[in-house]
Amino acid sequence: MGSVGHVTPQQMHFAQPLPLRSGAQLADYTLVYETYGTLNAERSNAVLVCHALNASHHVAGSYEGQPRSEGWWDNLVGPGKPLDTERFFVVGVNNPGSCFGSTGPMSANPTTGRPYGADFPVVTVEDWVDAQARLLDRLGIAQLAAVIGGSLGGMQALSWTLQYPGRVRHCLAIATAPNLSAQNIAFNEVARRAIVTDPDFHGGHYYAHGVVPKRGLRVARMIGHITYLSDDSMEQKFGRALRDAELGYTTQDIEFQIESYLRHQGEKFSEYFDANTYLLITRALDYFDPARAHGGDLARAFAPALAKFLVVSFTTDWRFSPARSREIVKALVDNRHDVTYAEIAAPHGHDAFLLDDARYHAVLRAYLDNVAAEAAAVRA
Amino acid sequence: MGSVGHVTPQQMHFAQPLPLRSGAQLADYTLVYETYGTLNAERSNAVLVCHALNASHHVAGSYEGQPRSEGWWDNLVGPGKPLDTERFFVVGVNNPGSCFGSTGPMSANPTTGRPYGADFPVVTVEDWVDAQARLLDRLGIAQLAAVIGGSLGGMQALSWTLQYPGRVRHCLAIATAPNLSAQNIAFNEVARRAIVTDPDFHGGHYYAHGVVPKRGLRVARMIGHITYLSDDSMEQKFGRALRDAELGYTTQDIEFQIESYLRHQGEKFSEYFDANTYLLITRALDYFDPARAHGGDLARAFAPALAKFLVVSFTTDWRFSPARSREIVKALVDNRHDVTYAEIAAPHGHDAFLLDDARYHAVLRAYLDNVAAEAAAVRA
Repeated sequence: MGSVGHVTPQQMHFAQPLPLRSGAQLADYTLVYETYGTLNAERSNAVLVCHALNASHHVAGSYEGQPRSEGWWDNLVGPGKPLDTERFFVVGVNNPGSCFGSTGPMSANPTTGRPYGADFPVVTVEDWVDAQARLLDRLGIAQLAAVIGGSLGGMQALSWTLQYPGRVRHCLAIATAPNLSAQNIAFNEVARRAIVTDPDFHGGHYYAHGVVPKRGLRVARMIGHITYLSDDSMEQKFGRALRDAELGYTTQDIEFQIESYLRHQGEKFSEYFDANTYLLITRALDYFDPARAHGGDLARAFAPALAKFLVVSFTTDWRFSPARSREIVKALVDNRHDVTYAEIAAPHGHDAFLLDDARYHAVLRAYLDNVAAEAAAVRA
Repeated sequence: MGSVGHVTPQQMHFAQPLPLRSGAQLADYTLVYETYGTLNAERSNAVLVCHALNASHHVAGSYEGQPRSEGWWDNLVGPGKPLDTERFFVVGVNNPGSCFGSTGPMSANPTTGRPYGADFPVVTVEDWVDAQARLLDRLGIAQLAAVIGGSLGGMQALSWTLQYPGRVRHCLAIATAPNLSAQNIAFNEVARRAIVTDPDFHGGHYYAHGVVPKRGLRVARMIGHITYLSDDSMEQKFGRALRDAELGYTTQDIEFQIESYLRHQGEKFSEYFDANTYLLITRALDYFDPARAHGGDLARAFAPALAKFLVVSFTTDWRFSPARSREIVKALVDNRHDVTYAEIAAPHGHDAFLLDDARYHAVLRAYLDNVAAEAAAVRA
């Protein structure tokens, strides 16, 4: 099993405005994307990878001359890997509103010439899927062999089957949920308040002030990290281990290793992630709720889907617990849709979907083998 | 079942310094306390109530002329209530370091004449128990019929049995843990970072600047609130209910009721709670770990205890889960100590220990009935 090697991001410009669920529109925008593998002659082997909060179009491979620049799902995507680039044409695309290259809050607002900042329109999972569909149009991909994503990426994968039922043969929805719980929203809201009330936020127009609301971003990331890890894995990894041999009896300095770890994660994040993007993406999470238009009836929401589904959850994921995945499975079964469900016993909490767990990858490999065989049959 | 009626806090001044676990000492200090009921002639019916993070000496009754000033455990303490003030002499005491009357960061530092602020010495659960013991000395109470507390209060109750084994006949430890988990410490640390990095914190000497680090306090309280409630009870109470009829598509304004609730809780808290106290009390939580001096062996830590124990946990408490209470029970059983354990099926999460749940209060009533009978037997 190898790497896709060195990769180069590509750009696609869209002059036609993207209408958004909020009623606003995105006037003129660029999407950054990467592809791995080769699109077959029948154009039947394309797989779209949707990214979650903190990731991007850079799914696999690395950038020449940049050590440690592996894509965020490099353990899954490559020649001989479960999402095998010798069989599939894999597309990773950065969603609008992000801070990794596609048009977002740091981009110039065409009406002012200055960065959008807080004026970037609110985007939803559905809007992202629309943008991705337009990109696929331009790439000449009428139908996906599969769409795959974890967490917020899983929400996009699910939404594909409802917005473009005829364009998706398989949906792989991993460590996700049919909507956020009150507790999920609560964590997002605390993170947003930490950012928005940071005096360096300047109402979202901090670029003009030459500052970044780092304090808020740090706190937001620390909260996020707690929810990504399981209680058990935190206990295993850090427990009550002290940084120094003896207690220092201090309220502001680090005593415990877990504090050191969280501060480090917060610091790193505040150095590269855009605060306005954080607000937009957590809001997209909050808003996702396909059952809402159907009086809360998730089964009715999934009625139009034509895809086959693989749903995967992890036992120690308390952010999007297996119970939330089972809600999805039930709604699919109620519609007699074809669904495979795997609940993976893994200790790593929500983060498990990014890790190379043998049982998890075996499930994906087996499922994707069938998807590849199907795609080849279309070809034959 | 009635109220203890109008109550008046009392003060006790201590001129003799209190040595602290950190090596520092508290030079000269005052404790604020309240008592309810009557100490019997044999002084055998005293019950000490230990408070948690956000509470105080004001356990029961109300203040004359102040509507809605009921004590924080008024549903438990009063004539005919489970902790029956017709049978017990109940003492509530505000711990040093707090912001509700006892000497704390807002008090004048005798060496400078200015508020202690961040220079208030770090206090531990053990230090608080020492301070409480001195208060009881002055009140002429050699031995407690019982010590009772929930959460951080439960840690103090447990510590009493180790620091002063001969002075406690019964320990009621509710919704507590033998120490904080890595995840518990992590939540405390994020809250502290939010406070300390608020520009209005001024290194803990904000009093001199005429400001309060309200942004940090709000975020800290919001995080706390999420961990006090169960996922289920939040879902029951708020779910995904919107504040307005339609979505507003906004990242900074309130969309969901849960956001409104959390912001309100944060706002209220930031108006009355002292930031330095928040740091001190969360640190006391972090530090509590009676097993530490025994190589992590909790059973060895509890060897010296002479009290009988009631341990109570709540099924939906994910802050201090039933598993943590069972660790305490196991350590007590390993020592053949007398222990009763109740795991209450209650939907309210950690906050359940403050609420008037019928099964929970029935357990406390039954246990305390026996404690009262024992206390009366000492009397006879």
